[in-house]
Amino acid sequence: VKGSGLVAQVDARAVRERQRYSSVAWQRVLSDLDRKGRTQFELMRVLSSAIERRELAGGVRLPSGRELARMLGVSRNTVIAAISDLVDQGYLVARERSGVFIADPLPPVAKTSMPRQAIDRMDWSARFSVGGLAETEAALRPPPSVAYSFDYGQFDFTLFPIAHWRECERAALGKLEIARWARDMGDEDDVELVEELRKHILPYYGIWSRPDEILITLGGQQGRYLVAQLLSGRGTLAGIEFPGLPDMANILRVAGAEVRHLPVDQDGLMIGDAVESCDTFYVTPDHQNPTTVTMPLACRQDLLKRAASGDIVVVEDTFETEFVFHEPSLPSLRSLDGDNRVVHVGSLSKLMAPGLRLGYVVASPTVIRELRALRRLMHRHPPGNNQRALAIFIRHGHYRTYLRRAAVELARRSAALAAALDRRLPDFRWRHRHATSSFWIELPAGLDADRLCVAAERRGVRVTPGRRFFSGLQPTANFIRLAVSTLGESQICEGIRRLAEARAELG
Amino acid sequence: VKGSGLVAQVDARAVRERQRYSSVAWQRVLSDLDRKGRTQFELMRVLSSAIERRELAGGVRLPSGRELARMLGVSRNTVIAAISDLVDQGYLVARERSGVFIADPLPPVAKTSMPRQAIDRMDWSARFSVGGLAETEAALRPPPSVAYSFDYGQFDFTLFPIAHWRECERAALGKLEIARWARDMGDEDDVELVEELRKHILPYYGIWSRPDEILITLGGQQGRYLVAQLLSGRGTLAGIEFPGLPDMANILRVAGAEVRHLPVDQDGLMIGDAVESCDTFYVTPDHQNPTTVTMPLACRQDLLKRAASGDIVVVEDTFETEFVFHEPSLPSLRSLDGDNRVVHVGSLSKLMAPGLRLGYVVASPTVIRELRALRRLMHRHPPGNNQRALAIFIRHGHYRTYLRRAAVELARRSAALAAALDRRLPDFRWRHRHATSSFWIELPAGLDADRLCVAAERRGVRVTPGRRFFSGLQPTANFIRLAVSTLGESQICEGIRRLAEARAELG
Repeated sequence: VKGSGLVAQVDARAVRERQRYSSVAWQRVLSDLDRKGRTQFELMRVLSSAIERRELAGGVRLPSGRELARMLGVSRNTVIAAISDLVDQGYLVARERSGVFIADPLPPVAKTSMPRQAIDRMDWSARFSVGGLAETEAALRPPPSVAYSFDYGQFDFTLFPIAHWRECERAALGKLEIARWARDMGDEDDVELVEELRKHILPYYGIWSRPDEILITLGGQQGRYLVAQLLSGRGTLAGIEFPGLPDMANILRVAGAEVRHLPVDQDGLMIGDAVESCDTFYVTPDHQNPTTVTMPLACRQDLLKRAASGDIVVVEDTFETEFVFHEPSLPSLRSLDGDNRVVHVGSLSKLMAPGLRLGYVVASPTVIRELRALRRLMHRHPPGNNQRALAIFIRHGHYRTYLRRAAVELARRSAALAAALDRRLPDFRWRHRHATSSFWIELPAGLDADRLCVAAERRGVRVTPGRRFFSGLQPTANFIRLAVSTLGESQICEGIRRLAEARAELG
Repeated sequence: VKGSGLVAQVDARAVRERQRYSSVAWQRVLSDLDRKGRTQFELMRVLSSAIERRELAGGVRLPSGRELARMLGVSRNTVIAAISDLVDQGYLVARERSGVFIADPLPPVAKTSMPRQAIDRMDWSARFSVGGLAETEAALRPPPSVAYSFDYGQFDFTLFPIAHWRECERAALGKLEIARWARDMGDEDDVELVEELRKHILPYYGIWSRPDEILITLGGQQGRYLVAQLLSGRGTLAGIEFPGLPDMANILRVAGAEVRHLPVDQDGLMIGDAVESCDTFYVTPDHQNPTTVTMPLACRQDLLKRAASGDIVVVEDTFETEFVFHEPSLPSLRSLDGDNRVVHVGSLSKLMAPGLRLGYVVASPTVIRELRALRRLMHRHPPGNNQRALAIFIRHGHYRTYLRRAAVELARRSAALAAALDRRLPDFRWRHRHATSSFWIELPAGLDADRLCVAAERRGVRVTPGRRFFSGLQPTANFIRLAVSTLGESQICEGIRRLAEARAELG
């Protein structure tokens, strides 16, 4: 009885208080608050937008925190926090001993003109110095997601080390850490990330580097872009693998270089005489993209000998070699290089969380110095907080743990894919190297890759047509690529079952 | 008695247990652990590096967690956590009911060759297509920090909203959020950040944009760089302000454009006939950098008329206009533009935490589409977690709160600087506009700016010589720039006292 009396009493008060705010404007605001204002932020949204719309005029007194809390049935702390933030934001003004008022004059608010219909009177295409990039196939947005995507390089949430990464981002939010990363770092990198890379990651590739031989980049993509801009400008000839990374030709085109396609065989890049006329060449020796071929040691040595005799710069791209932790690997070109002519480009986040965008370049200090100056003009430096969090992540051993777990899981998925292919599509000739996430598959004679991709898509299965890797030229055969980045074992089996159906349909 | 007996008993056990690990290797490891192994990570470091150095051979059994804890006098949980992480990392192997062993074979570890002395046989400078950037003055590292730095754009920890930023980074670490930002976003931006920008920030500039008119960049610097690459290539003429942002000429040089210097007067960029031969020009109408001049509305309209008659693209750089929240501002060029010829470049993090590197470009959808494709080749997208955290930061109203607080504080500091200058250096002609952090100062006749800077530096005071903003050409007078980004009021007064001393010394 006592309790319900109190409620009745409170209700009566609330009604009384509401009556004091009986203008149309207040009624609208209060009803918006009734509907939405249950949290601090919703409360702030409703009040600030009413003020911005001038529904609540400047100089009007706000109900007290206690009154508002009662009227809305939310806690007084919530109301007080919201009011205090709105005072900070300039919507409200607190006057000592008089209460809180709508700011008068109001703080400057959005210009009130309505959204303008965009009229474009410009002939833009005539002005683009590197135009038409948006039309390249690689730049086209992927179609909506499918149930069974064998696309490469997609993020796998089930492998992401949530707790470890949270721990490290939080550690990077300590006061001393913030003071180090929030500043404009100019052309510098996070010193600790460079140390972790130099001492705990590069040695696995046989690379021992001084800090001035290292540049942190926004992922492997930026490493390739920066190097091409600096070393493959107008009037130079750049050799790229054929088939190879679709973006490489586009990156070189923007840089201004002429491109020569160098064929890939079962030992990787074929080192013929065509190599020697190049100024630079771009090679993926560990897991050639897309064929997954690994270049044998003898070929690596031969390639460096040819490069030396032709005075060619070699850009070594460590595509998917983060898995080097999992198995002994061949020495990198950079570790075999006696002339300092190899520029080594790698990724740090591709496998784990490509959205983080972190990678690196290792090269001669002279090259790094110019790349650094170019990067400074481009955007100064990669965001400091992510560099710091990743440094802590590596230091605590989480990077190694992650790569090991991911390698085990990808090996398991790869075995499932190999088995499913052999069972359902035995005449598909696949090539796959341990510790990569993708399969390069030659289709049997007469089976068209593009038609297979379309038929598969209709069954919810996405595979990558091999054509993409041939720079718009004629593929040497009908290929497709399948990757196991995101699908679990049972999904892989079902995906291949459907792919086999699609193939059967084509006859 | 009972307690000390227990300790004695434990000690005796510890000694007995240590005797079981009496090899030289174990003694070394245990003594390293005694010295350093107090935390989980130190313990992991000592053990893993002993294993990497092969001091502890593969297959050897590790003391149990309980034994190790006792031997080292640390908690058993610490030891167990360390061991479990080392198992994950592949250094140790757990065998059921037998215990934990050093992995055998060891996981692949760093190649054991020693650091190589870098020999550079290459003539790099002949190969650089955009070489010499590292030699430009703007690229030179600043000298060591001084007690009183009036340098512009430095991070002020006392203004950084630590609690609010932590709240938002943590919110971005929710599982659903991670799934959205950790993936490879290709050429996309964070949808919510674009919405916040479009609805809650751009309207303050009078700009109403559709999402396809917006690109998120790595700070204002990347906005300028991308636009120059696309619209100011070889064979084009780009107009820039004189004096102006030192990097602008370098960015255009890399893009390939010829540069024309357009003088600035008390109304900003002087719109003479020189303008009309340009293909593009780059202008900072709100706070001209470095003069702090604001271009009046009539001049803005005149500039757009001239641009239309000469068919010139206008790149509007909103230098330090984040403070637009604090006071009513003039309509931006983009908001006055009827042809869609204005490309609007802005920063989102410059004032608060330049290390975060976030900004944007607003332009015609045709331009944004190509800029997006170019950015994709360059590095795909700005890191997803920071985009997400900033979107939450703006949504919660913290961005507005921060800018308001910073504006109030910078106004207070600016007043202190103006008073100190008027008192101690009354013949310095300073120009400062409300809501900027910097002062542009013309020195009295006969006082050399460079010599003043050197004399000030000797007294622990850093000021920026005006020469920097004249692209290596002759300055129109002796100028210096002072900014109040990092110094409090009393430091400003002391800094100016010392600057006056330096000036007196020069006579």
